[in-house]
Parts: sequence; structure tokens; C-alpha cells
Amino acid sequence: MTVLAPIKRRRGRPPKDQAAFSETKADLIRSGMELLTEKGFSSTGLDEILGRVGVPKGSFYHYFGSKDAFGSELIKQYTTFFNHKLDKFLLDESLAPLDRLEAFINDTIAGMARHEFKRGCLVGNLGQEMGALPESFREQLNEVFIEWQQRIALCLEQAKCAKQISVKTDSTEAAYVFWTGWEGAVLRAKLEQSDSALKVFSAYFLDSLK
Amino acid sequence: MTVLAPIKRRRGRPPKDQAAFSETKADLIRSGMELLTEKGFSSTGLDEILGRVGVPKGSFYHYFGSKDAFGSELIKQYTTFFNHKLDKFLLDESLAPLDRLEAFINDTIAGMARHEFKRGCLVGNLGQEMGALPESFREQLNEVFIEWQQRIALCLEQAKCAKQISVKTDSTEAAYVFWTGWEGAVLRAKLEQSDSALKVFSAYFLDSLK
Repeated sequence: MTVLAPIKRRRGRPPKDQAAFSETKADLIRSGMELLTEKGFSSTGLDEILGRVGVPKGSFYHYFGSKDAFGSELIKQYTTFFNHKLDKFLLDESLAPLDRLEAFINDTIAGMARHEFKRGCLVGNLGQEMGALPESFREQLNEVFIEWQQRIALCLEQAKCAKQISVKTDSTEAAYVFWTGWEGAVLRAKLEQSDSALKVFSAYFLDSLK
Repeated sequence: MTVLAPIKRRRGRPPKDQAAFSETKADLIRSGMELLTEKGFSSTGLDEILGRVGVPKGSFYHYFGSKDAFGSELIKQYTTFFNHKLDKFLLDESLAPLDRLEAFINDTIAGMARHEFKRGCLVGNLGQEMGALPESFREQLNEVFIEWQQRIALCLEQAKCAKQISVKTDSTEAAYVFWTGWEGAVLRAKLEQSDSALKVFSAYFLDSLK
């Protein structure tokens, strides 16, 4: 994600024309995404999300039915963004399959470093918080992990064909291990404010496939 | 952790005699531990912690200086509890070293299952929430991971001597990978309400050592 450009402060009721309404809604989603990847759902207040975008207090419900509906929309948008990112790397035929996975890993490490290891993964954050979240988020989050897992599994199958990894690898299981450990590494990177866990876990994982 | 026995509802000011005061303080810590392992720090209100123990609202500050001081105390007590648990398994000379690690893993899986995968790791939960927590928690949490890592590294060194794992294993690095991935697995187990991530990750990890 890129850093938000400063946004003009808006006053009064929400804009009536559709373009301005949609723009403000998109800004609220970007603001929510930034805050939730840093702090999670429970710690982020609506006022803080609105404040960053310059939307007056109390007008949130013009844009979203509830904080829960907003959270659900954020998961959807984050998933779209992240699936696109994964595809950009994992379907890049200019690289050998395993090198694509490595390129994705390196890009994510660089992204976390750019935000000083303050921002993690929205899906990991909400997964950790699940005990305090609306039950409807659970299925949505589990489905996201399955989508991501399928993408890595496909890449590992291709790495098998390219003889980069052992043909005995169970790609689906290895992809599951990858996401399990990677979310743990993102958590640890935020805590340590360092890329160490991301580098050590991914090197260990890639090495174990060979 | 064991399930709390029903606690008699207390009324009025905190007890004056030291034994009753200490008992109530210990109950508050147990109540906080249960809630924070389920929901994390930010989502848990003081009223909820007090309510479970039957302590009147507003009397929290008789026992702890602040919610932050309470959180810090919980980390300390959880660490003591967990170090004891790790030592019980990892120093059990009736088992071969790697089998001790496996016994610890199996016991943790059984513990999570007993609580229907609702309770995770206090240190993992707070680590994930770090963006919203007092900065002083960071060093405390990082130190806990180092203590746990040292215990696993020692066990892996002993597994090397017992020829259970490759002598080429970097025990410190492998122990770091273990905790990174294990915290990810605990997160995923809570989300999936299943032992799958714990079993798959630990089997992968143990296999990678051989």
C-alpha cells in the first residue's frame, strides 16, 4: 500500500453528487486499511478513521451500514489488492516458479520496512482478534487464506515441473505451512520492528523444499 | 490453565486483610489471563475482568496502578506459568529430546482443544496488537520469546547429541523458526477452530530437522 496523500478537510453533510460520495468512501477505506493493518479492528475507533480523511464525526453511517459492514468491506478490498499482488509475482513467467515466490517475499519485506514494520497483514490481525470480532468475519477470513494457499500451491506445482523442488513435496500442505508461518513472521516482525523473522522463516521454508 | 471455579461475589470496598486482598488480586489476574488469551488487550474492558471475579466496578485501582501495569503483570505471570510448562516437558529425561518437544506440542494442542480453540497465546496476542499497546510492552514481549527460544534451542542441541536430528542444524535459528511458525499456527487454529495448523506446522517443523 502507498502512503496517503494529504486529503482536503471536508465539512458539513456528505457530498450529494455520486463521484464525490464514492471518492470519500474510497478514502475511508484507505484510512481504515492503514489503521487496521497497524492496530487491528478493536483498537481502531471510527472517529480516528474519519479524522484522517477529514470527514465530520457522525457521518460514517452515510457511507457504511455499521462498523462490522465496514470491516467486512475492508477484508474484501484487501483481498482483491493482495490477490492482485500475489498474481503479479506468482504468474510472472519471466522468472522460474520458486524465484517468483522469493520475489513476492522480498517485495513484502521491503513494503513492511517502508512502513517501519508498523503495518502487518489485515487478515492476520483480524484472525488474531477473532475472539472479539463478529462471527461472520470467520468464514470470510478462512476463505481468504484458502485463496492465497491455492496460489502458492500452484506455484509450487510449477516449481516441481521446473525441477526446482523435490517432486515428493505435497504442494497444498507446503502452501498451508507457508501461510501459517508467514503470518507468524509478520506478527514477529511488527513486534521486533525488524525483518529478521520474515527473512529467517522464508529462507528456512524455501530451503526445506529443496 | 484450568477453568476458574465459581467465585463468591464480593461487595463493597476491597478486603482489608492481606490474605483476602492477595486472593482477590490473584483472581483478577486469572480472569484477565482468560480474557486476554481469548480477545487480546484492547478488546478487554476492566469492567469485564472485574465482573467475572465479582469485584465492584471502580475498585480495580486498589489492586493495580493502571490497566497497563495490569497488562505488564499478566505478561510476567503468563511467562512464569509457560516457562514452567516448557521446563516440565523439555527437561523430562525419561524421554528422548525431540520426543519432549513433541510432548509439549501435543499437550498444547490438547489444551487449545479443551478450550474449543478460543484461547491462544497471551504473548502472541499482545505481539499482534503491539501497534495499539504501551511501548513498554515491546521489550517485555521480545524477552519472553528469547527465553522460550533458548529452551527449545537447548532441547535441539540435546537432540543432536542423541542423533535424533542432523548435526548441521543451527539450533538457535531452528528454535526461532519454531516460535515464529508456532505463533502463526496458534493464530490460525483460533481462526479455524481446529487443530489442523498446529498439527501440520509442527509435523513439518519436526520433519525438517531430520
